[in-house]
Amino acid sequence: MRIDVYATPDSAREKDLKDRMVVVVDVLRATSTIITGLHNGCREFIPVIDIEEAVNIAKNYERDAFLLGGERNAQKIEGFHLSNSPREYTRDVVEGRTIIITTTNGTKAIRKASDAKEVIIAGFMNVNAVCDYIREIGEDTAMVCAGTDGRFSLEDILAVGAIISKLEDEIRLELDDLGMVCRYLYENNEDDLERILRGTYHYSRLVELGYEKDIEYCLKMNTAPIVPIYQDGVIWNIGNLRD
Amino acid sequence: MRIDVYATPDSAREKDLKDRMVVVVDVLRATSTIITGLHNGCREFIPVIDIEEAVNIAKNYERDAFLLGGERNAQKIEGFHLSNSPREYTRDVVEGRTIIITTTNGTKAIRKASDAKEVIIAGFMNVNAVCDYIREIGEDTAMVCAGTDGRFSLEDILAVGAIISKLEDEIRLELDDLGMVCRYLYENNEDDLERILRGTYHYSRLVELGYEKDIEYCLKMNTAPIVPIYQDGVIWNIGNLRD
Repeated sequence: MRIDVYATPDSAREKDLKDRMVVVVDVLRATSTIITGLHNGCREFIPVIDIEEAVNIAKNYERDAFLLGGERNAQKIEGFHLSNSPREYTRDVVEGRTIIITTTNGTKAIRKASDAKEVIIAGFMNVNAVCDYIREIGEDTAMVCAGTDGRFSLEDILAVGAIISKLEDEIRLELDDLGMVCRYLYENNEDDLERILRGTYHYSRLVELGYEKDIEYCLKMNTAPIVPIYQDGVIWNIGNLRD
Repeated sequence: MRIDVYATPDSAREKDLKDRMVVVVDVLRATSTIITGLHNGCREFIPVIDIEEAVNIAKNYERDAFLLGGERNAQKIEGFHLSNSPREYTRDVVEGRTIIITTTNGTKAIRKASDAKEVIIAGFMNVNAVCDYIREIGEDTAMVCAGTDGRFSLEDILAVGAIISKLEDEIRLELDDLGMVCRYLYENNEDDLERILRGTYHYSRLVELGYEKDIEYCLKMNTAPIVPIYQDGVIWNIGNLRD
């Protein structure tokens, strides 16, 4: 199986993703938040680019059927119910509801993959579940990191490294240069990911804003063993169909 | 001093490079070839994007005053004097001549930085010389890797890592995430760069084509202690003005 890795959405051309299996990673914090929400029983996420678009979509829902979530500059958006902190997406808050979410990097990465054959949402929280799913599908896969403000962001690279490392336990992979780097960085730092992340841009910014607990939460492995899939504009837990 | 690293020319926006100090790296093989040619006394390099452009520029020169060099698909271009193998750019061939060069990745990266304040050409061959120059200028610097066919290419990342590692011996740097990764990969592999490069895309392609000796040549540190600078469409050895 061939794995191609893109450090940012912009570094992937449309044709690199079209009709392919695509895995989107935005560890801090969009994909971790989506995984958490679906694991805690929310109905679905609708990822949108603009705040205005989010508010317009919300008008189609009954008052108790939806929540608005997301961030700008890592902070809660005025008038929204939830920020982009995964720890707010608890079962009592999200169960059964549709969450319309807009974030700076993650939702852009997800929407970029709109023409993919299948889009899977991943983070450290669901590494094993995502690997099981990729192996089951058995097709060449593109992994798209959200990055931060269009730049290479180490936490996403490490999560892709974790997925590659785990996949290789059971199948042979053909990796591009960035895939090899992801694997190398993860395998040399898996015992203490925070050590190598200290000083990186997005990590430092979240620490400055007081989100240390979010970081700790997002870096934990396999705490939410589900596979969220993005299809026709909506992200849902693929396990809900199978049960 | 702040260092920003771009894994490919396309990942840098025009405004990221405009009026800045820019270092361009294409270890395999364009910048190694340019460093070699200038170290061996050629007058200057003119980097161009198209073969047609190269041939047209050549018409302005006397028969013995210029050479056409470069590659397509890593092979010599039909009708050109030289390929992109640095080992062809010996003193007896290049001394005193203008070399019009077109390569797939490297010349594109150099031209992308046209609006920079200053563009320096670097590789393993001139790490120390480039570091001395960057410290002398003392300004925030963008490092642009040529990559391979628009993709992240590990040999360029390692060379940027070597420059960052050497710079940090004497000055404090503020690095972006990719800069930290470059430094980490270089410092953990500096004793045997070929070990980590084995299996990477560009390296493997050159080995397949029989260019092992070029790779070995391009990975040697500080064999050509000069600083090539790109200005007004021409690359020359900055030391020639100072002597």
